[in-house]
Amino acid sequence: MGANHRMLHLNLFINGMGHHEAAWRHPSARPERLTDIRYYQHLAQVAEEAKMDAVFLADRVSTSPRAVQSGTVSGFEPLTLLSALAVSTSRIGLIGTVSTSFNDPFNLARRLASLDHISRGRAGWNIVTSGTDQEAQNFGFEKISSHAERYERAREFVEVALKLWGSWDRDALVLDKERGVFADPEKVHELNHHGRYYRVRGPLNVPPLPQGHPVLVQAGSSEDGKAFAAAFAEAVFTAQQTVEEARAFYADFKTRAERLGRNPDHVLILPGICPIIGRTEEEAKEKEAQLHGLSDPRHSLLLLSNRIGVDLTDYPLDAPLPPLPPAEQIEGHRSRTQLIVDLAQREQLTVRQLLLRLAGGRGHLTFAGTAKQVADFMEEWFVTGAADGFNVMPQLMEEGLNDFVNLVIPELQRRGLFRTEYTGVTLRDHYGVPATR
Amino acid sequence: MGANHRMLHLNLFINGMGHHEAAWRHPSARPERLTDIRYYQHLAQVAEEAKMDAVFLADRVSTSPRAVQSGTVSGFEPLTLLSALAVSTSRIGLIGTVSTSFNDPFNLARRLASLDHISRGRAGWNIVTSGTDQEAQNFGFEKISSHAERYERAREFVEVALKLWGSWDRDALVLDKERGVFADPEKVHELNHHGRYYRVRGPLNVPPLPQGHPVLVQAGSSEDGKAFAAAFAEAVFTAQQTVEEARAFYADFKTRAERLGRNPDHVLILPGICPIIGRTEEEAKEKEAQLHGLSDPRHSLLLLSNRIGVDLTDYPLDAPLPPLPPAEQIEGHRSRTQLIVDLAQREQLTVRQLLLRLAGGRGHLTFAGTAKQVADFMEEWFVTGAADGFNVMPQLMEEGLNDFVNLVIPELQRRGLFRTEYTGVTLRDHYGVPATR
Repeated sequence: MGANHRMLHLNLFINGMGHHEAAWRHPSARPERLTDIRYYQHLAQVAEEAKMDAVFLADRVSTSPRAVQSGTVSGFEPLTLLSALAVSTSRIGLIGTVSTSFNDPFNLARRLASLDHISRGRAGWNIVTSGTDQEAQNFGFEKISSHAERYERAREFVEVALKLWGSWDRDALVLDKERGVFADPEKVHELNHHGRYYRVRGPLNVPPLPQGHPVLVQAGSSEDGKAFAAAFAEAVFTAQQTVEEARAFYADFKTRAERLGRNPDHVLILPGICPIIGRTEEEAKEKEAQLHGLSDPRHSLLLLSNRIGVDLTDYPLDAPLPPLPPAEQIEGHRSRTQLIVDLAQREQLTVRQLLLRLAGGRGHLTFAGTAKQVADFMEEWFVTGAADGFNVMPQLMEEGLNDFVNLVIPELQRRGLFRTEYTGVTLRDHYGVPATR
Repeated sequence: MGANHRMLHLNLFINGMGHHEAAWRHPSARPERLTDIRYYQHLAQVAEEAKMDAVFLADRVSTSPRAVQSGTVSGFEPLTLLSALAVSTSRIGLIGTVSTSFNDPFNLARRLASLDHISRGRAGWNIVTSGTDQEAQNFGFEKISSHAERYERAREFVEVALKLWGSWDRDALVLDKERGVFADPEKVHELNHHGRYYRVRGPLNVPPLPQGHPVLVQAGSSEDGKAFAAAFAEAVFTAQQTVEEARAFYADFKTRAERLGRNPDHVLILPGICPIIGRTEEEAKEKEAQLHGLSDPRHSLLLLSNRIGVDLTDYPLDAPLPPLPPAEQIEGHRSRTQLIVDLAQREQLTVRQLLLRLAGGRGHLTFAGTAKQVADFMEEWFVTGAADGFNVMPQLMEEGLNDFVNLVIPELQRRGLFRTEYTGVTLRDHYGVPATR
């Protein structure tokens, strides 16, 4: 194997006390640390020690009294948190989720430019459009705008952001004290962008970014989401339940990117995986059962309702999932809703059973097994064209992360599937994805 | 003197390579460090070592090819930068400027809440309304809205932010694993704010802040600005040219706050001062002359034009300042413009002379002298009711800061005017200003 043979890419997706919705109730969890920066510094440092590609933060711009009752608080704003983590680490990438629906391109492009400088080239932006009325109601709207309109707006938003990041030529900064020329004004450009949603004069008020622009990440798997991601995304975070579905998604996605003139190797497909690792498979299943036993199905139903934007809270728990509106009528998180409906139908699940299937990772694939089984699983997906790597979502953040880095990563390294040292310094270096704009 | 005797409050206002507009051209300046986070970490650590109350960051949300030519780039977004500084320091306060005209209350309240948690209670928000068309043009507008309307909007913005920070009762977080109660839903409140400018549902998705809410700082000295600050500000950053003017401002301001039912001791008045320190007065004046010699008057005129929102770039340099529009017609930075006009008239300055007077601190008081003279000056202002402390603005950031902390602060400490150790951990502790909302 040469130095450039294909390697797995592994992000640590940090989420509260863990991705299992009841993680904070686990005996080992210390939920008082959720507002303690040292908790996040520790997780990022553990992931960096393990040579993972990046930490990843999701986001949601609302909560409710009922949701916080059972532990659903989105918490710190991702880019604010990542900036603190940037100076607490030196190599690991820093990917934050920020919505295009409730931000201005100038401010967000600038904040990401700042993070890219502060981290010396490790910033990534997970682009979301937000999908719930509850979020829209924190920003002056009654209802979230339509799925199609959100993606149209997102497209223009990203185009403007790319123009802002490109508004200084790479060699614009001169710093000539003698002549008093700080930057060459011929190499710093106004945008004068006048689009459908945005009017932005520019230029950006931050010098050129170490990475050119932050790594662009996208997670939507709806038709609109895939078209958007094929055009812009450099890493795609996706929820896939079976290797067959994942392969089909992977092949389709790489083809779409290629058709748009892009190098398909420069778009990484990273499904989520929520592992629970035991010394034996039995121990892993016991750990999973323990977490499931801490779930409250009425709260799970509220979470699911909030997530897909359809109120399910009065549904009976021990009956099959009643029909939901067809996907094209769902203006919220369309692809996730479709995945959930398919899962319930394929496996003939009652609502209660479905909720437990979702408890560990909200629709991402959950996997309870030994380190070897997790490594086998990842290897199969990796070598058969289902994934370029994974967004790793430990169901119990500290204990599960420790199991993953102490048991699974060494196994992947033994198999030559994962780096043993960082070979570069930026997130683009880790991902092998050059800035092309 | 008792433990609670009145002490000076000193912020370090960090600005590029220094507050003098030509600071980056000085032989000791290393402008390539402007994008290096270690530069800012170093400055904050020096200020913390000297027991200063806070670092302070200004902001402007635009630049232009002509402005960057001579070194005017606002640079990193303040809160992103402060979050990195929060984990690089442990005691010093962190005050960032953010505009109410180009942000959403929900996002900004959340980012400040995040910073307050990450810093364990050291966040401050300098509230500005932005004053130029150039900035407005980065956010979809042709022109900046009127002075009065910006302040009306700012008032509602701050009211919403305070409601969001207050949307969790202090004891709302329960973390009862046994019963599965993360937070008490009776103690987490929706706002359902429906105002003239904003509709925000709430609650905030971040648990209660260490400080209750960030320290609110305001810098406007116009009539609108003073009315706003008297209602909300806990520290007022102001530009005053003479001790008489400063005393009048101070007395007027404390009276305004008292009339609104506030404790006047809980509103600190902190004028800006731009010191240049020499071993002798002569040496200090030489240092000042050296910096002035690096200024380019044509660039200074552009800066001034951008600052006050009136195009002066074709004015002859060696004639008196021509009349400007009356203050009430200026929709930009009204009080700063008035200060500049008054200064030019009082001292009968030509445009060129005025520009040099502004070069060191953009209208803030500049002072070239010995450490003893600076300390005398500060003491006089402090004991005669002109100031509760100062926003210290070194004209040359590194060298001038070193002079200030090595020479002036020990002199102030010898006089019992400045702390020798931090006595608390939050910015509110340092300022002696409790959260009242």
